[in-house]
Amino acid sequence: MRSDGRPADALRPVRIVPGVIEHAEGSTLIEFGKTRVICTVSIEERVPPFRMGKGGWLTAEYGMLPRATHTRSEREAIRGRQGGRTVEIQRLIGRSLRAAVDLEAVGERTLLVDCDVLQADGGTRTAAITGAFVAVVLALRTLPAEVLVRWPVREAVAAVSAGVVAGELLLDLTYEEDSQAAVDFNVVMTSSGRFVELQGTAEGEPFDRTVADRLIDLASAGIQQLHQQQLAALGGYLGP
Amino acid sequence: MRSDGRPADALRPVRIVPGVIEHAEGSTLIEFGKTRVICTVSIEERVPPFRMGKGGWLTAEYGMLPRATHTRSEREAIRGRQGGRTVEIQRLIGRSLRAAVDLEAVGERTLLVDCDVLQADGGTRTAAITGAFVAVVLALRTLPAEVLVRWPVREAVAAVSAGVVAGELLLDLTYEEDSQAAVDFNVVMTSSGRFVELQGTAEGEPFDRTVADRLIDLASAGIQQLHQQQLAALGGYLGP
Amino acid sequence: MRSDGRPADALRPVRIVPGVIEHAEGSTLIEFGKTRVICTVSIEERVPPFRMGKGGWLTAEYGMLPRATHTRSEREAIRGRQGGRTVEIQRLIGRSLRAAVDLEAVGERTLLVDCDVLQADGGTRTAAITGAFVAVVLALRTLPAEVLVRWPVREAVAAVSAGVVAGELLLDLTYEEDSQAAVDFNVVMTSSGRFVELQGTAEGEPFDRTVADRLIDLASAGIQQLHQQQLAALGGYLGP
Amino acid sequence: MRSDGRPADALRPVRIVPGVIEHAEGSTLIEFGKTRVICTVSIEERVPPFRMGKGGWLTAEYGMLPRATHTRSEREAIRGRQGGRTVEIQRLIGRSLRAAVDLEAVGERTLLVDCDVLQADGGTRTAAITGAFVAVVLALRTLPAEVLVRWPVREAVAAVSAGVVAGELLLDLTYEEDSQAAVDFNVVMTSSGRFVELQGTAEGEPFDRTVADRLIDLASAGIQQLHQQQLAALGGYLGP
Amino acid sequence: MRSDGRPADALRPVRIVPGVIEHAEGSTLIEFGKTRVICTVSIEERVPPFRMGKGGWLTAEYGMLPRATHTRSEREAIRGRQGGRTVEIQRLIGRSLRAAVDLEAVGERTLLVDCDVLQADGGTRTAAITGAFVAVVLALRTLPAEVLVRWPVREAVAAVSAGVVAGELLLDLTYEEDSQAAVDFNVVMTSSGRFVELQGTAEGEPFDRTVADRLIDLASAGIQQLHQQQLAALGGYLGP
Amino acid sequence: MRSDGRPADALRPVRIVPGVIEHAEGSTLIEFGKTRVICTVSIEERVPPFRMGKGGWLTAEYGMLPRATHTRSEREAIRGRQGGRTVEIQRLIGRSLRAAVDLEAVGERTLLVDCDVLQADGGTRTAAITGAFVAVVLALRTLPAEVLVRWPVREAVAAVSAGVVAGELLLDLTYEEDSQAAVDFNVVMTSSGRFVELQGTAEGEPFDRTVADRLIDLASAGIQQLHQQQLAALGGYLGP
Repeated sequence: MRSDGRPADALRPVRIVPGVIEHAEGSTLIEFGKTRVICTVSIEERVPPFRMGKGGWLTAEYGMLPRATHTRSEREAIRGRQGGRTVEIQRLIGRSLRAAVDLEAVGERTLLVDCDVLQADGGTRTAAITGAFVAVVLALRTLPAEVLVRWPVREAVAAVSAGVVAGELLLDLTYEEDSQAAVDFNVVMTSSGRFVELQGTAEGEPFDRTVADRLIDLASAGIQQLHQQQLAALGGYLGP
Repeated sequence: MRSDGRPADALRPVRIVPGVIEHAEGSTLIEFGKTRVICTVSIEERVPPFRMGKGGWLTAEYGMLPRATHTRSEREAIRGRQGGRTVEIQRLIGRSLRAAVDLEAVGERTLLVDCDVLQADGGTRTAAITGAFVAVVLALRTLPAEVLVRWPVREAVAAVSAGVVAGELLLDLTYEEDSQAAVDFNVVMTSSGRFVELQGTAEGEPFDRTVADRLIDLASAGIQQLHQQQLAALGGYLGP
Repeated sequence: MRSDGRPADALRPVRIVPGVIEHAEGSTLIEFGKTRVICTVSIEERVPPFRMGKGGWLTAEYGMLPRATHTRSEREAIRGRQGGRTVEIQRLIGRSLRAAVDLEAVGERTLLVDCDVLQADGGTRTAAITGAFVAVVLALRTLPAEVLVRWPVREAVAAVSAGVVAGELLLDLTYEEDSQAAVDFNVVMTSSGRFVELQGTAEGEPFDRTVADRLIDLASAGIQQLHQQQLAALGGYLGP
Repeated sequence: MRSDGRPADALRPVRIVPGVIEHAEGSTLIEFGKTRVICTVSIEERVPPFRMGKGGWLTAEYGMLPRATHTRSEREAIRGRQGGRTVEIQRLIGRSLRAAVDLEAVGERTLLVDCDVLQADGGTRTAAITGAFVAVVLALRTLPAEVLVRWPVREAVAAVSAGVVAGELLLDLTYEEDSQAAVDFNVVMTSSGRFVELQGTAEGEPFDRTVADRLIDLASAGIQQLHQQQLAALGGYLGP
Repeated sequence: MRSDGRPADALRPVRIVPGVIEHAEGSTLIEFGKTRVICTVSIEERVPPFRMGKGGWLTAEYGMLPRATHTRSEREAIRGRQGGRTVEIQRLIGRSLRAAVDLEAVGERTLLVDCDVLQADGGTRTAAITGAFVAVVLALRTLPAEVLVRWPVREAVAAVSAGVVAGELLLDLTYEEDSQAAVDFNVVMTSSGRFVELQGTAEGEPFDRTVADRLIDLASAGIQQLHQQQLAALGGYLGP
Repeated sequence: MRSDGRPADALRPVRIVPGVIEHAEGSTLIEFGKTRVICTVSIEERVPPFRMGKGGWLTAEYGMLPRATHTRSEREAIRGRQGGRTVEIQRLIGRSLRAAVDLEAVGERTLLVDCDVLQADGGTRTAAITGAFVAVVLALRTLPAEVLVRWPVREAVAAVSAGVVAGELLLDLTYEEDSQAAVDFNVVMTSSGRFVELQGTAEGEPFDRTVADRLIDLASAGIQQLHQQQLAALGGYLGP
């Protein structure tokens, strides 16, 4: 039995609130249990040099409020640079979202995705990907049809963690579970059941193929539920 | 008539939600109209060298989510340093709160105040001071009575802006009003009616003494209402 | 009686030496007692993007030699960034000077003001504003009349501090007085008797309205004397 | 047929030269085809604070000579910070090596692993892990038996890439292949056939489970050959 | 004939004003013609780790006011780091002064030398060395005899430039001469006629041995005159 | 007798391997005994603003692998900036090479020279200059004759150190010798026997003219041998 009473294969309560930041072209507040992330999408009418003449671009940044964590962490603006973990996560978010969006169809504009963690309790990167996808669709819906080559949303993308804690295979780890996990997977999948990213890490002992397979199964099932929630937050469809 | 229908001497709707961040010793979400700021207070059991042997310390940091503003601003963690405006504001927040707290009574510990703007529509620094004061009291209430020399909250501190826009003297400026203001005051006052900080700036034409006096009056009246709201958010009293 | 024998309402000896740096378009050495600041103005034939098509711009930077202070302070070039106090002061200097200059009349060029403190004994920011105004006029005088829309100097601007030390209201605080002050005002005024900036800070106890009013009166009287000195350093007139 | 004539499931020629840097406690030059990396291990007699009382630590850093790449890349020491890719790779190298070493057995000392790429032609991170493992064993062999709790090398760890290029599943991608890959896996495995890290990324289209399974098989077979080479470079055994 | 009418082997007018900065333990303003440098010496009662148990230390920093030069240069505190030229010069100043001071005799304290250029017209590094030596002696004279092992000033050290301009061998180059020089020497010598530093650089064509020899002769003669000026500024003796 | 058995006036074994880095336009590995440096030259089809319309440019950067030295040094990319020694050395390398190359003849392109030390045992800067010259010629040979105004290589340039160790005048100091040297010279000369750079530093006692003269003689003789080696590595001629 998990400390919050969940079965091993259950997600925490998920909540996706669209439109929380008035200025942004698209925004969501997403909650995976106590983990709370604000995702905004800003559209800029230019692309970086390497995308000129090739369509649009999407890039992501990630941050945490200093007191999102149990003990306060130093503000990265004061430390003068983003930490290694931050950089790794924001690169993952960007890659994941780019897989779901047909950037050629976006035209020469950039989607700037910001994921800022208000409260962290494990799974901030997977919540960020899941919430940011919804914000991306909302932002694209603000564009007039005529500026788009075609509708750029190919399918939904969502993410969840799974891991081995005290010998048990668990879905959607809390911070406490994550810090005790022997194996930790982050899986990013699209609604067609394909993978965008598969990251498995042994925190102590290496793991064998069977464990990898079972964790991927667990995550895949969880992601299907997340896709439902995304769809609901988007009014039931991914179109314009 | 102001664009949101408010009289010249009215505050925007104020909302103070205590306890929004579970991990922090004290926290509030404060709203001045569409301006929304999360204030957290973290308590650390040490003081900077210059306070050793002299009691506690309080310091503040300020940040904005990149898309808090109408157009996205660059993340300070990426630019590699805090901007001049950020530094000025966080120094003001720290000074203002220190005036309301008897640091000697806190013992050798530091209150780290973080004010992070989720959405900006003018008055982020005054909202931050007003909300952070409540978070400071909440944080101090988590300390056992025996670690305190005495109860450190002297009185409440709150802040509001006032300015001259198109010849009119207005209280609590929105972003739109602020960007058209000829004169801009930020006033920080305690509940005993005394000033902690008085900052008046001519944005274009210099201003005369009468204007200064009337703006200070306007702000003073507004701050009294904010003190009421702070008190309500704290359960009606400033004590432990 | 003050430690240097001055009456409470007296300025320290003021000295303004124009033209101390040969290369600069305008320059002054200003002394407020032992406080000594070199102000230079450089004219560049371009403006930042946000001023294009709107006339000229003026911006200020502030620095201190490492041993300007009683104990040596670290060189900001080595620390890798300007401190919060530096940024606050240089923003104040820029705002103050912009209020005295009709930037539209300057044409598309930038006045870069540098204020570097050789020796610090309190009042470095007010001395810098007072001395830099003179350097700005000298720099503008080097421009041929035909490149200016009209003569850009509207009126003089000068600044002084005032504060409460040991219960006494004093004008133009030395470092020693400033470090004991309960209340500290910096006032920036133009020669027409209007305010550009009014900054009052309680260093310990908050202050009441009467104290604020009396300190502003004290400062206003002091600034009138500074305007006389500025005029003298400029040959008796503010024109071209 | 691949551009260098290799079969789809073949590694490039691998060469591991131990002891190339005289000063280092352990060092190797490793080549995966034209990719060439110098790995050094330095032993310091202290651990970071979070490891005190818990045994040793191992951390890795990664760099590239500016002209390791086809077009020169800016020196990170001049840009003033490590790029996101660098940080991600050095974190991966550290995690991978820590999985093969019993840090408790090392005693309170830190193994600092430096992987510097002299020439890059794809697979620099996998070559670095593979070569650094050998350098770690060499460095540990310089320690007298009595300072070790027990022999800390649990098993070997090596890494290789695999990917889908033009519909073909290929092992150990060159730079040219990697830049055309639709799917890119990096697999880190120990000599007991277990995984330390499994990272699969869709570069364009998401990939399905079958592709993931086959790429992991391909990589696993390749890693077994790398373990042979590592063993040979270490004189045929992993012991002291 | 040189543009300022000087003979080829003449120094510019040299002026050394001791005691210009009241707070510093030692200070001078030195002028080589229009080149003007403030040198201060601060004494700290600690040494860097590598000098512990070995006596004192001396280190130097160098800076330029932004408008010391003909066209304004960016403030290094804003650029976020010292430039290459700055670093090279301050290392040279430190090495030169250390050669004249018996650091063992100073006891465990550090002399921090700051050389800040107010106005630059060639020879700022040589003026800085020459002026800083005087400030060092003044600072050492403030130490009570009993804290010193013995009097630490071994002999005087001074520096001057010499170069080849339009085929002529010239002493003490101005900025204009320096920017046209084909060969540029900086020579640092002690009052016993020995060299501390000899730096000759071909700016265009390489130079032959004869030129090197003649420029060193020229500089040596100039430095003897500088030693006279130093002695005069120090009251005629190098002792305590 | 020196610790490696060399006579006082002998170079260490020198080895110059051309073409070690496949991607670079020109490259060498140079060894002065145990000192090993990789030099690469990259050609970019643009020049910095101050060279526009004036022909080409050449600039150099220098780095060391963290474990090139006896004890590991911090990676400059992590420290966030290049150290003073690094900056000084790379400026010297650039100046030295520019003296040997007719930049006007190169056309509007930049030669970017990178010297990276794999292993350091004294003389890294002199080895870098000597090896980089060869790489520069190799890089220029890749340019088609028609893009060059004329062949830009004027003559060869090479460098060596000489110093006084325990009273003996020695050529080409090892790290151990260098750290005991009382006087340390670095001499850069062209194949016509002229000087590009002459740097002599007293590490403790100042040195007299005779010592300077004899060290320059020693270095000159050594450099003639280095020019032979350079010529051999270039196939016996400096032409295209």
